[in-house]
Amino acid sequence: MTESPDGRAKPHSTDRRRFLTRSLATGGALATAGLVPARAISQTAPDPLITEVQPWAQYLGDGVDVYPYGMPIEFESDVIRRNVPWLTAETASSINFTPIHQLDGIITPNGLCFERHHAGSIELAKEDYRLMINGLVDQPLVFTYADLERFPRENRIYFLECAANSGMEWAGPQLNGAQFTHGMIHNVMYTGVMVKDLLAEAGVKTEGKWLLAEGADASAMTRSVPMDKALEDCMVAFKMNGEALRKEQGYPARLVVPGWEGNMWVKWLRRLEVGDQPWEQREETSKYTDTLEDGRSRKWTWVMDAKSVITSPSPQMPIRHGKGRLVITGVAWSGRGTVSEVHVTTDGGVNWHQARLSGPSLDKSMHRFYYEMDWDGRPMLLQSRAVDSTGYVQPTKDVLRKFRGLNSIYHNNGIQTWAISADGEAENVEIS
Amino acid sequence: MTESPDGRAKPHSTDRRRFLTRSLATGGALATAGLVPARAISQTAPDPLITEVQPWAQYLGDGVDVYPYGMPIEFESDVIRRNVPWLTAETASSINFTPIHQLDGIITPNGLCFERHHAGSIELAKEDYRLMINGLVDQPLVFTYADLERFPRENRIYFLECAANSGMEWAGPQLNGAQFTHGMIHNVMYTGVMVKDLLAEAGVKTEGKWLLAEGADASAMTRSVPMDKALEDCMVAFKMNGEALRKEQGYPARLVVPGWEGNMWVKWLRRLEVGDQPWEQREETSKYTDTLEDGRSRKWTWVMDAKSVITSPSPQMPIRHGKGRLVITGVAWSGRGTVSEVHVTTDGGVNWHQARLSGPSLDKSMHRFYYEMDWDGRPMLLQSRAVDSTGYVQPTKDVLRKFRGLNSIYHNNGIQTWAISADGEAENVEIS
Repeated sequence: MTESPDGRAKPHSTDRRRFLTRSLATGGALATAGLVPARAISQTAPDPLITEVQPWAQYLGDGVDVYPYGMPIEFESDVIRRNVPWLTAETASSINFTPIHQLDGIITPNGLCFERHHAGSIELAKEDYRLMINGLVDQPLVFTYADLERFPRENRIYFLECAANSGMEWAGPQLNGAQFTHGMIHNVMYTGVMVKDLLAEAGVKTEGKWLLAEGADASAMTRSVPMDKALEDCMVAFKMNGEALRKEQGYPARLVVPGWEGNMWVKWLRRLEVGDQPWEQREETSKYTDTLEDGRSRKWTWVMDAKSVITSPSPQMPIRHGKGRLVITGVAWSGRGTVSEVHVTTDGGVNWHQARLSGPSLDKSMHRFYYEMDWDGRPMLLQSRAVDSTGYVQPTKDVLRKFRGLNSIYHNNGIQTWAISADGEAENVEIS
Repeated sequence: MTESPDGRAKPHSTDRRRFLTRSLATGGALATAGLVPARAISQTAPDPLITEVQPWAQYLGDGVDVYPYGMPIEFESDVIRRNVPWLTAETASSINFTPIHQLDGIITPNGLCFERHHAGSIELAKEDYRLMINGLVDQPLVFTYADLERFPRENRIYFLECAANSGMEWAGPQLNGAQFTHGMIHNVMYTGVMVKDLLAEAGVKTEGKWLLAEGADASAMTRSVPMDKALEDCMVAFKMNGEALRKEQGYPARLVVPGWEGNMWVKWLRRLEVGDQPWEQREETSKYTDTLEDGRSRKWTWVMDAKSVITSPSPQMPIRHGKGRLVITGVAWSGRGTVSEVHVTTDGGVNWHQARLSGPSLDKSMHRFYYEMDWDGRPMLLQSRAVDSTGYVQPTKDVLRKFRGLNSIYHNNGIQTWAISADGEAENVEIS
């Protein structure tokens, strides 16, 4: 791992970038051949780990009373959420990152879902929970948690991505690891009730075109949601991956705004107000807007555009086995629908290969891709590029910068490059 | 909750059963009306929990450094795996149960997946892991964990059900709670490599028609798997719900045998031997066969037939909110494919209603169903009935007993009945 102690990527000179690009253009990916990673018993010295009786075959292991709620085995203690201390100074506004480089498939375990708090993570018991619907409605209502459980429930797997994911990378490589560059995302199954069913109970007046979602914590997070979106697929969720929402994800209930920036998924949801225009709150004007080169700002940039990243190999997941068969894997997602294709290049974009998608392809959910190859042991410039069901193609960082400048924090969905050296180490770089 | 201290169901007289059946036949389910579970602000006294500023809006909550690997909030400390001490006396052969009554959706969190050990749960590090393929192959092979990671991976959501799930219920109601009667099941996304790819590496000889799977723990679990099944969809899995397999689920690698009894999903998989006939090991002759009334035994009863259970209301999840809107929910699954329909009755089978399936419908995966109704507050006899994609219909317990007698432990997929009293309590009963 080439990660520096503070999580910053190493400086990478333009000269080196040019060199890498050149050396790869002549190399290119080979067709997958039939290399045998397994060792033939008859060809190697006997391996005592399979020929001899091992200690774990001779003792009685743990019974079922050890962990009523199970935890990962001690050998996996490095699979954790991590923060980058210099990114956010205060507890009030804190972030950590999902270890996406160590995960596979499309489900994020609840204990590893990244956190982003504006006033820390609070304790709010189900008995104390209330959700108010007010504003332009026929009948203002207050729901208890038990009330919510009496509405029809839905189950949907959605990604939740912070608008600031990859936000440190606008000016160039900063953070050396997929966990840090792309780890403000998770993907779980939500169980909850549809916002449209709750609104129907209150009766929305014809002039009601917007919804204000407000959280119960000290940050009083407030975001405006267009009524069309609220009625289309927004949920008030109380379970994730089958069990109760985690404390840090808004226990006992949060708003789910599929495909849209994470900041709108208000945690500890306490109020839905119906109005005839947006509220222009702090978190949708001063924050969560994208200032362009000329000083103007894009606002209402709700949708998370198609994006992908290779999670292994990556700076925290170097290639340790040398040349030969290599499984390249990563994740892709789009706030506009499903991911229809992912392409992978090993030579910095000279040649693109079709990656293989594996696992259910679900609307506004994370997708898993693989590209299996035979590595000749030469340096590579790895990139992935997602195409979604609307035909949107993930752009390069250069194209993004051309239109969006360098004043932005949010909505950086540019193509990520990892430089792989001959010894299998990976580094966050850019090529041009 | 009417559960007795030892987890046994209360005795339930035939007279009471008849009474329940009669009283319900005249009642029946009402059409869903527009009852309002929410309280209108203008109609009730002001609720300080929504009108006043609460403590959690005035303090700074936890920052992100508290739990690198997160756990459920303390309020959910009753959502745990539970065992029934008198079911298995020794640590060597121990069982606990998934709290299915408290879960929703179709994903089981890893920490709540039931455990079944034959020699306890061992600690086997990735570095020490070996998987041998031997027998009728061109080239015997030994794979390290790192070798496995170099094969193409697949991601599939499958249920795993112990063949003995509901096994205590053959003679009548025994365990008063869905967790205990039906909780030897979980449903997660597996990431792993296909057995067919590993076998292709070794080269299966033409006479190789069976596979022996062997575990590395002291029980040396061994099961015979027909080659057709092994080649069709069996996996060697190393991840569940995105992260490493849990210790108690066979870390670092287990066999996945989709739709077939859990005992075959050998944990800590150390060997796959190819043979020309089944091995007739202890766990497929003396155990995991079903002795019939006449003393003969059914064997090779691998497939888990279609089954369903209502998880709420149920003995551990009584109705606390009184009459009016009620969400009845449960899970259904089939080892033969998908679940195409689930029917729910509230009057012990006099009238059946179509339940609503929610969430992706995936092959050999758990399905979630709901039946929303208006409860008039009268006693009910709740049952659910699954139909799978092959047209197989979940049978009644009486039909099962007619053909299979009372000597069986395994493969009880009969229809479960919960008696709901006027005060909302639920009890494990049978009707005839």
